[in-house]
Amino acid sequence: MNTIGKIFTFTGFGESHGAAIGGVIDGMPAGVEIDLEKVQHELDRRKPGQSAVTTARKESDTVEILSGLFEGRTTGSPIGFIIRNENQHSNDYDHLKDAFRPSHADFTYTAKYGLRDHRGGGRSSARETATRVVAGAFARQALEQWGITVRAYTSQVGPLVLDKDYGGMDLSVAESNPVRCPDPEMAAEMEALILKVKSEGDTIGGVVDCVVSGVPVGIGDPVFGRLGARLAEAMMSINATKGFEYGMGFRGVELRGSEVLDRFVAGPDGEISTLTNHSGGIQGGISNGQDITFRVAFKPVATLMQDVCTVDRDGNEIVIKGRGRHDPCVVPRAVPVVEAMAAIVILDACLMNRASRL
Amino acid sequence: MNTIGKIFTFTGFGESHGAAIGGVIDGMPAGVEIDLEKVQHELDRRKPGQSAVTTARKESDTVEILSGLFEGRTTGSPIGFIIRNENQHSNDYDHLKDAFRPSHADFTYTAKYGLRDHRGGGRSSARETATRVVAGAFARQALEQWGITVRAYTSQVGPLVLDKDYGGMDLSVAESNPVRCPDPEMAAEMEALILKVKSEGDTIGGVVDCVVSGVPVGIGDPVFGRLGARLAEAMMSINATKGFEYGMGFRGVELRGSEVLDRFVAGPDGEISTLTNHSGGIQGGISNGQDITFRVAFKPVATLMQDVCTVDRDGNEIVIKGRGRHDPCVVPRAVPVVEAMAAIVILDACLMNRASRL
Amino acid sequence: MNTIGKIFTFTGFGESHGAAIGGVIDGMPAGVEIDLEKVQHELDRRKPGQSAVTTARKESDTVEILSGLFEGRTTGSPIGFIIRNENQHSNDYDHLKDAFRPSHADFTYTAKYGLRDHRGGGRSSARETATRVVAGAFARQALEQWGITVRAYTSQVGPLVLDKDYGGMDLSVAESNPVRCPDPEMAAEMEALILKVKSEGDTIGGVVDCVVSGVPVGIGDPVFGRLGARLAEAMMSINATKGFEYGMGFRGVELRGSEVLDRFVAGPDGEISTLTNHSGGIQGGISNGQDITFRVAFKPVATLMQDVCTVDRDGNEIVIKGRGRHDPCVVPRAVPVVEAMAAIVILDACLMNRASRL
Amino acid sequence: MNTIGKIFTFTGFGESHGAAIGGVIDGMPAGVEIDLEKVQHELDRRKPGQSAVTTARKESDTVEILSGLFEGRTTGSPIGFIIRNENQHSNDYDHLKDAFRPSHADFTYTAKYGLRDHRGGGRSSARETATRVVAGAFARQALEQWGITVRAYTSQVGPLVLDKDYGGMDLSVAESNPVRCPDPEMAAEMEALILKVKSEGDTIGGVVDCVVSGVPVGIGDPVFGRLGARLAEAMMSINATKGFEYGMGFRGVELRGSEVLDRFVAGPDGEISTLTNHSGGIQGGISNGQDITFRVAFKPVATLMQDVCTVDRDGNEIVIKGRGRHDPCVVPRAVPVVEAMAAIVILDACLMNRASRL
Repeated sequence: MNTIGKIFTFTGFGESHGAAIGGVIDGMPAGVEIDLEKVQHELDRRKPGQSAVTTARKESDTVEILSGLFEGRTTGSPIGFIIRNENQHSNDYDHLKDAFRPSHADFTYTAKYGLRDHRGGGRSSARETATRVVAGAFARQALEQWGITVRAYTSQVGPLVLDKDYGGMDLSVAESNPVRCPDPEMAAEMEALILKVKSEGDTIGGVVDCVVSGVPVGIGDPVFGRLGARLAEAMMSINATKGFEYGMGFRGVELRGSEVLDRFVAGPDGEISTLTNHSGGIQGGISNGQDITFRVAFKPVATLMQDVCTVDRDGNEIVIKGRGRHDPCVVPRAVPVVEAMAAIVILDACLMNRASRL
Repeated sequence: MNTIGKIFTFTGFGESHGAAIGGVIDGMPAGVEIDLEKVQHELDRRKPGQSAVTTARKESDTVEILSGLFEGRTTGSPIGFIIRNENQHSNDYDHLKDAFRPSHADFTYTAKYGLRDHRGGGRSSARETATRVVAGAFARQALEQWGITVRAYTSQVGPLVLDKDYGGMDLSVAESNPVRCPDPEMAAEMEALILKVKSEGDTIGGVVDCVVSGVPVGIGDPVFGRLGARLAEAMMSINATKGFEYGMGFRGVELRGSEVLDRFVAGPDGEISTLTNHSGGIQGGISNGQDITFRVAFKPVATLMQDVCTVDRDGNEIVIKGRGRHDPCVVPRAVPVVEAMAAIVILDACLMNRASRL
Repeated sequence: MNTIGKIFTFTGFGESHGAAIGGVIDGMPAGVEIDLEKVQHELDRRKPGQSAVTTARKESDTVEILSGLFEGRTTGSPIGFIIRNENQHSNDYDHLKDAFRPSHADFTYTAKYGLRDHRGGGRSSARETATRVVAGAFARQALEQWGITVRAYTSQVGPLVLDKDYGGMDLSVAESNPVRCPDPEMAAEMEALILKVKSEGDTIGGVVDCVVSGVPVGIGDPVFGRLGARLAEAMMSINATKGFEYGMGFRGVELRGSEVLDRFVAGPDGEISTLTNHSGGIQGGISNGQDITFRVAFKPVATLMQDVCTVDRDGNEIVIKGRGRHDPCVVPRAVPVVEAMAAIVILDACLMNRASRL
Repeated sequence: MNTIGKIFTFTGFGESHGAAIGGVIDGMPAGVEIDLEKVQHELDRRKPGQSAVTTARKESDTVEILSGLFEGRTTGSPIGFIIRNENQHSNDYDHLKDAFRPSHADFTYTAKYGLRDHRGGGRSSARETATRVVAGAFARQALEQWGITVRAYTSQVGPLVLDKDYGGMDLSVAESNPVRCPDPEMAAEMEALILKVKSEGDTIGGVVDCVVSGVPVGIGDPVFGRLGARLAEAMMSINATKGFEYGMGFRGVELRGSEVLDRFVAGPDGEISTLTNHSGGIQGGISNGQDITFRVAFKPVATLMQDVCTVDRDGNEIVIKGRGRHDPCVVPRAVPVVEAMAAIVILDACLMNRASRL
């Protein structure tokens, strides 16, 4: 189950402490001009060691494209790529060889597979998400040609909530601060909180908001292909996620139907739109032409820089010393991953939609 | 996209105002004794007209199994079934022929397909979920043989929140009241609220909580087959859902890592479990043997019994009169649907897991 | 594994001795006008009891469409349908309850599933192919709107080989005789042979040829989606098939490359075609605009009207008396099934091709 | 469509003239000891430049495994791998930039994708099959632990037919001669024929036979997952294939049912087997415990070392000079590819079968 998508698909591979991670992008439409610098730029947004609020681990995360491009354009053939692993400190994990770290996948992987690559969490490591960013970068370049853009940002860190509608903000500001929050003041508060939490050897959770603009009416499928279902699946496949909501989400539960109906209106040219967007751009599982808006909850990272009690595989009680290089809060680096997964889902749904009429 | 699942799959069909709805359950393991009364019982829990808090529409929702059973047991062959539609008042929808009802799928379906069955919402009608309940009832009977149970209940209606841990309640109590809340006092409050909202021609949202018990360690797959991702996809494919969370969900965002680690302990027989369950029974996408707990947000239904302004397909402003028979709150009838989808996902994941080792 | 197709999919269900067979057609493009009489006509071509060369079993095989149509056109929603079983003589099979009939699926089904519906072969019965014919009839009506036609015919029965190129024959003649051979003289010989074989309580094999015309250039996918591979899979999923070949097939093995190259030429309007069609209309797995031609081998039916030695489930030697109503040669009734499967594959490939370019 | 398989899947990528080819093996059961020398050995059997009957192109085809192994065993995580391309003479293809070579994929790829990587045929090149051999080598090592073996050999080259049953031959002899025919005398004749054809600048077709032994009873699925269908799809996805048959295949068409029934008998221990194997080890789509036998037809290669008339993309008539390094007959190098694809299909079917009973 390392493949996502139906027509535009991505298949990933690789552990954090193996030779390389990589993947295959299949179903990419032919003839798309690809700017490889943009692909690398997306990886750079996700890579470790960017700032004091992320892990101090250094990896250049340089992608090598192996196939599927000819003279700068996609050929319709699958795009294979790899990212070599660097700067692995596998010894950092020797003391964890037989430990089941709390709220990690050590126990469940061992139970499932009977054995486990203990170095860096193997396939459960968030390092794997770098390959999704590559696939997403290809998808985004296709979507851009149709005027579809995907923009995510940090909207909450711990109890600090950015309580502003995205419509009133310049979302590109998010890239100018290390936490990726489009409000500079809130960004500074969030950064300070993360540093405080880090100094205490602890971690903290957060929320990423995402806005997809420019999706035409009619994308998505009824029933099991609902756009909300496909986005939920994609987002909840990202490490450390615990929740997904779109449009009014859980907040809408408290409201009356009369308060949340998105009234249709017709423009001078007859184009139909809605006055409000409680629906988050999706009605009956299908895009209605408004912005698609959703939110993803990330838990506090389970790797602490403090002593933690647990058991080993024989059931003996042990204490794990905090060690290694880890993120005190995943949210800043998760922003490009959320964007990548959204781009993958939307491109796939757009391509599928071409078959909806004769 | 009317199929869900990988090994155990369900494919549904049918509109509310056609001849019948139905589906095909494929990949059902052979040799499972099926109690058809239990299947019908699940349908009865979902059917309209059960109480004053649901729609007054009357349909018997009798399932006819057409294949896949022999002498009371599954044969490994696909199980086809139909539920005849009854008591359709198609004329109720004549005035909606060209209207785009707000927050409904009328507009998006028309845009996608170029035409639309306006009677009862066609495929976007929640009537379709009856077929999922049949598939879920088969899945549940397989799961029960392994001691796996699925139990959902109403935990919130509008602002009324059941703020008790499920561990301290008898969840079977939920079936004794029309809102399906396991706390009798809260149930009475919720019922009163729904009746008040209904009397005002309005609707209200709510939340369904679900607990899956008895899932062995090791079920679910890394990366795109994470159990959380598969449950999210399945739940967000249900009509009127706006959010999904598991374990601590969105609430966990505000907490520190040190507060939410699920510490492992070993029992006298060496069996490893966790002291707490912030993870909601899933770690690294794979079950850890604890209860799997998740929550699903349902919006207030978009069909009001009051006048609503909108446009028709030519962009003319029109007013829709509230008419027909609809639920003021979907949550009570959504409970068995959530259970059905959970059973489908868990059975599929259990069967897939058999291939994880040589 | 009762589903075929990727975008246009068909999921079937039903045993010969259950209540009904049926299926779900999903991914049918919206807006296609459907002539239901044509659908029934295809079923009539396949149904038992048509002539002396087929089984004497009588079933009307009347299809009931349950969903997905509105005012005579497809809506984009799944098309559910059933065909009630009639005229079942389940008692005909009582003596076979514990027998493993030679070259039948009794033994393999029992081993796989641990139990078996012995009445009529359960899911291994060719009765299941009736549901494919319904799906194919829908696919054909979509293809016809693009000028794509599918025509199959009997080209061999036992040693009697129709050694004429289809180009020189009127293929519609095939429908005027019970064996479905477009050459009236050969048809008469084949019919006589089948009747002779039948009178001896024996059965005989044959070959069906198929020609798909009007497929535009560019349909099909490289590598695992090759049109030849998809047709092979579809044809070899039909009961009693033992071989598939396209274009020059096995005969081409003996030839030199220089003898079989399909030379390209350009017409006055610049349209490129080939002088010959050894490739069978497929090059690199993708249609080249020429007729797609393939052949399917059917074995002699395993049910004989004579005594047959075998064992029962306990390994005891037993003798099975020939009884019941069976086809002495499946080929005449297989012709519409081959056409149906070809239509399903080609429509699916045409719809997928829409995603090949931005 | 660069993925094959349902649970055990392979996704490939790469063109002959890009940086590398490679792929991802997913769903490999955990805990299988892998001998990487055996993997490389399979690649060596397929690589160019082995003998005078194959292309003179030299590539070492060294596989680099990037993930999914830990301490010599599979971990259940996806296995990513690459094979660097070497010794590319891209200039050999400059004269073909705008040419549509007869019976090649140049024309169909250009029509489908609007552009084409003309160097070496891009994705339509048989070089891609090297990646399948890697996936097959992993599958084989899993199958071997269950005692399942896959053995293919050359049974026909042009008109030279090896007319012996495999039961009377030592199939391992096939590896001792360059054409991979288990009969030394016939091998010598075949070799001489290929060399003669090559000296004339021509090419010739052939047939590969394959035997899979040790498959337990009950593998494969009814209807669309029939083992014959899945093998057909896999084999017909190999470059240059034109036909597939299993068991008695096309030859069985001429026979009577009474001649080809595979009579069941019970051994002293009650184990049931068949006296003959006209069924080719598959009954009702499911393995019956006998050897699975099938045959694959390969056309003569379309690249000749002689002048060939065709058109360019503007429809101008041109003559292509024979140039480059190509195989006069693909069959010897196709043998390991057939084995690899068979291993992939059988392992996938074995893993799927685990879900067939509760």
